[in-house]
Amino acid sequence: MIITCRKPQTLVWLTLLLLGPLVAQGAPDLPSWQDTAPRQAIVQFVDAVTTPGSADFVAIPERIAVFDNDGTLWSEQPLYFQVLFALDEVKRLAPQHPDWQTTQPFKAVLDNDHKALAATGLDGMNRIIAATHTGMSSEAFAATVKAWLAKARHPNSGRPYTEMVYQPMLELLDYLRARQFKLYIVSGGEVGFMRVWAEEVYGIPPEQVIGSRFVGQFQDHGGQLQIIRTAKLEHNDDGPGKPESIDALIGRRPILAFGNSDGDLQMLQWTAARQGKSLIGLVHHTDAKREWAYDRSSSIGRLDKALDAADQNGWTVIDMARDWKRVHPFD
Amino acid sequence: MIITCRKPQTLVWLTLLLLGPLVAQGAPDLPSWQDTAPRQAIVQFVDAVTTPGSADFVAIPERIAVFDNDGTLWSEQPLYFQVLFALDEVKRLAPQHPDWQTTQPFKAVLDNDHKALAATGLDGMNRIIAATHTGMSSEAFAATVKAWLAKARHPNSGRPYTEMVYQPMLELLDYLRARQFKLYIVSGGEVGFMRVWAEEVYGIPPEQVIGSRFVGQFQDHGGQLQIIRTAKLEHNDDGPGKPESIDALIGRRPILAFGNSDGDLQMLQWTAARQGKSLIGLVHHTDAKREWAYDRSSSIGRLDKALDAADQNGWTVIDMARDWKRVHPFD
Repeated sequence: MIITCRKPQTLVWLTLLLLGPLVAQGAPDLPSWQDTAPRQAIVQFVDAVTTPGSADFVAIPERIAVFDNDGTLWSEQPLYFQVLFALDEVKRLAPQHPDWQTTQPFKAVLDNDHKALAATGLDGMNRIIAATHTGMSSEAFAATVKAWLAKARHPNSGRPYTEMVYQPMLELLDYLRARQFKLYIVSGGEVGFMRVWAEEVYGIPPEQVIGSRFVGQFQDHGGQLQIIRTAKLEHNDDGPGKPESIDALIGRRPILAFGNSDGDLQMLQWTAARQGKSLIGLVHHTDAKREWAYDRSSSIGRLDKALDAADQNGWTVIDMARDWKRVHPFD
Repeated sequence: MIITCRKPQTLVWLTLLLLGPLVAQGAPDLPSWQDTAPRQAIVQFVDAVTTPGSADFVAIPERIAVFDNDGTLWSEQPLYFQVLFALDEVKRLAPQHPDWQTTQPFKAVLDNDHKALAATGLDGMNRIIAATHTGMSSEAFAATVKAWLAKARHPNSGRPYTEMVYQPMLELLDYLRARQFKLYIVSGGEVGFMRVWAEEVYGIPPEQVIGSRFVGQFQDHGGQLQIIRTAKLEHNDDGPGKPESIDALIGRRPILAFGNSDGDLQMLQWTAARQGKSLIGLVHHTDAKREWAYDRSSSIGRLDKALDAADQNGWTVIDMARDWKRVHPFD
């Protein structure tokens, strides 16, 4: 009482600033979600773990939530956006590499020859990723990604890639954050690529972005100290690599995990196996009209074993066409 | 105003809860620090980067502060406490390993033969660390460390190891936290060892503890999903490994870094090289009476090159005997 009486205006301001998400009235939660099973499961779970005195109450520091990125928070078709970045980079860098005109896999990229590119397989893609993602400092790479994002447009929608996010998932992130969950991205994507835009787009700061990463090497270039991105992969954050990196970097088992593909299976299983309540979600791409429809036979974001696991374990499967009122913010 | 009038009591409670560190009156800051140059440098730096409108103002998300652990936040003599843990573990586990009675380096530990142990060198120590730190799940290892901490006592002070922390540094952590710095440990110590007690002792949660680490492997033991600690070192968080892990895991350059030995040099240099103001601190062990006195020729926590660098660059060197009123909380 004494404090509120002394400086009511300052306090109101501070209170609004800090507690805005908690005390805000009127705006409904999760407005882009249909009132179907997934939304109900989310609200029920979050109520259970955040209500003091509830048998399932989870203390704030333990409220770790992990999200895959590609296909879970933003689209991943017709190719992972990071791959589209790499292909654009090959074209931008080609003048500095005359040999690329005649050497695969670079020639295929420069010729827009998708068939020849596909023929170079995983090895070809790894060489393209190495050529475009490594050999520079962390800061220089981040600047390159930023410059690309400012100009690049998605081939189907014509939108900036950062608009290709899922509006219902943005609302879910806000909903959880307001209830003091700590949100992490745990993605097969390269961590330096994601950190450039994750804070602005998702409100997730760099230190809460986990991904695949290259070995960084501390170097002193005439007094300029930098971390240089080498071509040696330090961690492949896919499949079992996801729970492994969560254990290594977060050091706590999450209580909520969302994914969309078989690459998320072990992360979902491991989260589900915690002692106590958990919420496991799968984004199922069923919406050929507003986004894409693919699952068991897709080469990108294959959802097969994880869909069976969801069925067997009663995980929350989001049928994009049925459960989301909107898909992208621009819909 | 409307909000304060409606629910004044709730608001006072919420305000105290969230803003307590900011509005608390009376308790002086950094009470265990003498009013000498280091304390003045800390207060001046923190004021500069947290005062809105200051030329050196740093936005809250960028207020990353990194601290070495051994010798910076807690003592590291007569041996790193993690090594003392490993030696105790060899004795505890010996009945399950009859061959250790006759095999080095284990025999030397069991015989309390320091000379023979020293003769096994770094390889011997690595074998002891591997035997005591790997081959079990993360959870099982954490439980072992916890059980050890509950019973083990420091050989000189007879105190629990978690009391061998530096009172002035605990106050510095509180001081920074109250000003919305995000605090990280960045230590050569093994991350799973530190996470067990860092939250309780320093208020630093597991996800803000960075250290050396072993490769974790996701395994399914008859439906029990675990991360098993393998004997393969994934990262040695010492020397250049420190800025490398900060870049890989935090993804931002800190604005404040404290260490105490040459193993911290690159972290300190890299932080100092940021664009904008930074505070670089070195804990200099000058207090043979209350703690230990050692620097350039010590085999543990050698401070030689970093002391020269501090001198050349005007870093803040804390003379433990001169600048700290108290060393440990129990003093």
